[in-house]
Amino acid sequence: MPERDIEDLVVRPAQVFRDKQGINLLTGHCAENIDSGKQTVSGVTLEGDPFELPYDRLLIATGSSAVLPDLAGFDLPGVMVVKTLEDGRKIKSYLKNNRVKKTIIIGMGYIALEMCESLVGLNIEVDMVKPNPVFMPWLEPSMAQAVRQGLVAKGVGVYAGHPVERIKRSGDGLKVICPDLTLTADMVLVGIGVKPCSRIAETAGLSIGVQKSIAVDRNLRTSDKNIYAAGDCADAYHVVTAEKTWIPLALRANRSGWAVADNVCGKDVSLEGVAGTAVFRVLDFEVARTGLSLSEAEKSGFEPVENMIKSGSKAHAYPGNTIIMVNMIGDKRSGRLLGAQMVGTEGVAHRINAPAVALHSRMTVAQYCQTDLAYAPPFGPTWDPTLTAANQLLKKL
Amino acid sequence: MPERDIEDLVVRPAQVFRDKQGINLLTGHCAENIDSGKQTVSGVTLEGDPFELPYDRLLIATGSSAVLPDLAGFDLPGVMVVKTLEDGRKIKSYLKNNRVKKTIIIGMGYIALEMCESLVGLNIEVDMVKPNPVFMPWLEPSMAQAVRQGLVAKGVGVYAGHPVERIKRSGDGLKVICPDLTLTADMVLVGIGVKPCSRIAETAGLSIGVQKSIAVDRNLRTSDKNIYAAGDCADAYHVVTAEKTWIPLALRANRSGWAVADNVCGKDVSLEGVAGTAVFRVLDFEVARTGLSLSEAEKSGFEPVENMIKSGSKAHAYPGNTIIMVNMIGDKRSGRLLGAQMVGTEGVAHRINAPAVALHSRMTVAQYCQTDLAYAPPFGPTWDPTLTAANQLLKKL
Repeated sequence: MPERDIEDLVVRPAQVFRDKQGINLLTGHCAENIDSGKQTVSGVTLEGDPFELPYDRLLIATGSSAVLPDLAGFDLPGVMVVKTLEDGRKIKSYLKNNRVKKTIIIGMGYIALEMCESLVGLNIEVDMVKPNPVFMPWLEPSMAQAVRQGLVAKGVGVYAGHPVERIKRSGDGLKVICPDLTLTADMVLVGIGVKPCSRIAETAGLSIGVQKSIAVDRNLRTSDKNIYAAGDCADAYHVVTAEKTWIPLALRANRSGWAVADNVCGKDVSLEGVAGTAVFRVLDFEVARTGLSLSEAEKSGFEPVENMIKSGSKAHAYPGNTIIMVNMIGDKRSGRLLGAQMVGTEGVAHRINAPAVALHSRMTVAQYCQTDLAYAPPFGPTWDPTLTAANQLLKKL
Repeated sequence: MPERDIEDLVVRPAQVFRDKQGINLLTGHCAENIDSGKQTVSGVTLEGDPFELPYDRLLIATGSSAVLPDLAGFDLPGVMVVKTLEDGRKIKSYLKNNRVKKTIIIGMGYIALEMCESLVGLNIEVDMVKPNPVFMPWLEPSMAQAVRQGLVAKGVGVYAGHPVERIKRSGDGLKVICPDLTLTADMVLVGIGVKPCSRIAETAGLSIGVQKSIAVDRNLRTSDKNIYAAGDCADAYHVVTAEKTWIPLALRANRSGWAVADNVCGKDVSLEGVAGTAVFRVLDFEVARTGLSLSEAEKSGFEPVENMIKSGSKAHAYPGNTIIMVNMIGDKRSGRLLGAQMVGTEGVAHRINAPAVALHSRMTVAQYCQTDLAYAPPFGPTWDPTLTAANQLLKKL
């Protein structure tokens, strides 16, 4: 893989906003208060000067921030979160300036696992630790087990069930201390999730939604008709449950930004919602999901049944055919498809999108079984693995 | 790629049918007539002995056969069709026993292009020839042009617009003769399509459908209530047009066999229909389609609009990011999504299934634009290429 510069990730530098798009981009201004009566935003600059700006329509796009536990040692040099581009620069610089041979990752979510992949790719030894004893709790257990075994086979230490109590400096390195476990490394990455940056909205008295995200309607309007919120700071409707949810992922964030721009300019753009579709790669595995997990479906009042199948990623006699595991979740009462999950070494990432579209259409499992999906020997068996999964699930409904 | 034996393709040998499944498998029996009043099938064995078999329910699963034009020289040694496993054995044996350095493929459809890929992989020079001057006429022109250029760049001769008049022997080789072109090679493959084997059904007076396939209802029943037809010999409903169509592809064939088995055994299994989803690989390219092409949509009475976009196959800064071309077709009157086509060097094959599911759900383009598809940098841009295509098409509707 060719060396890439982290700055390649910047799509649109500040200069473009200012010079080419004519946007009055005020960086270094900390917005602190919204006066929704006067329609102003006020705060202080980094130099300590107060400012106040009037608005006709306001968009809150404050995003989310990395969760950092309030425990001893999380502020030590070498302990870093993974959220912003600046975090990435810090990690790269730390790796360059310290001979990092081993890293501890606190957390085992998407981002933590993606960081694990990157570090193993740099030949850095990785231990992962988290309090919940269940590895990837949203995933069907045998699939989660397959991913966990894959990590362990590559030498990654997976310590699920160990709450971290503190981090301390120890010689040249760092010690991550749990009640019954102490791990040692040269660097610690904290990837235990994000929280919405909704303080300014809360202070302004706007309605707050799921997990303290800013409550918005399908047009991204907050409880104040002149104020919109979009991106990771705002909540959304889930297309399966029709309830509010907070799933801070890139597509929804990007899409809601465009929708606000349209709505502010007088168009009426309403967003249907999210299906919770996600994919990530960790070492040999592609892991994907859409919709609800079994336990999420139970909590949402469905009568869910799940069924996991193993299928080939290609035609049975085609070279390079590998195993794909597909779990599908359906509702016993309505027959509706509620979710799907997939684990495999290839051919997983784009396959999740077909069940994702089915969720948007509120398809039943029986209807999904009828879909005409593509077949050619290099790309799959005659029956796409998601069809085999749906066919088998149908027998249980 | 490891050498594979052609016999690996056999999923279930005759022995298994006879011994393990207890099926009275009468090979070497040519069924010639159906007496639907008496409920018998009669014919002669390969040894010339007549036979007659009674039935309660009859399934016609005669498949399709390769089209071979009635022209001089198509019966010469070294001129072969590509349809059955036996055809494959003959081609492999011919390649082994003759030093084939060059092959002419007559036809430029899926099978012809897949054969081109296989032969180029064996370092055999390939020329392709067909009467229609338009290369891949169902594909958006600039996408067809990209595939054509890819073939030419690999040294494949693409002679579209040349009707073949005859083939003749010439020294050690074969000459394929067109009015204004003569091509020379060691082997000729004829891949100009297949036709349904419906003679026995026609003789029995059963209704014949599209392109002489056997007309069946959604339960795979022919015009005689005791006779079913399934597989390449039978027609199907198209989920976009709701009209009958004949698209002989593997999934529909397999699925209709299962449905007949269920229906004969007393279950009521009705098949919704096909979306015409297909994918194939040719050299560097993956080519996929679902639903109607622009001209098919016009012929079916829609007011179709198409729009082609180019997108990345991965996130913009991710190593290995390549171009994917996506064409989407929508109906100006209803806003419905009518079809999608994709060409790229990776990440095409499984991506077509999301629009395919959307066709089954009769989604509008605007509804497709709302779908929550998976994103991670190794697998695609934030907006899946099919979403970018739908967003752009929506502006034209």
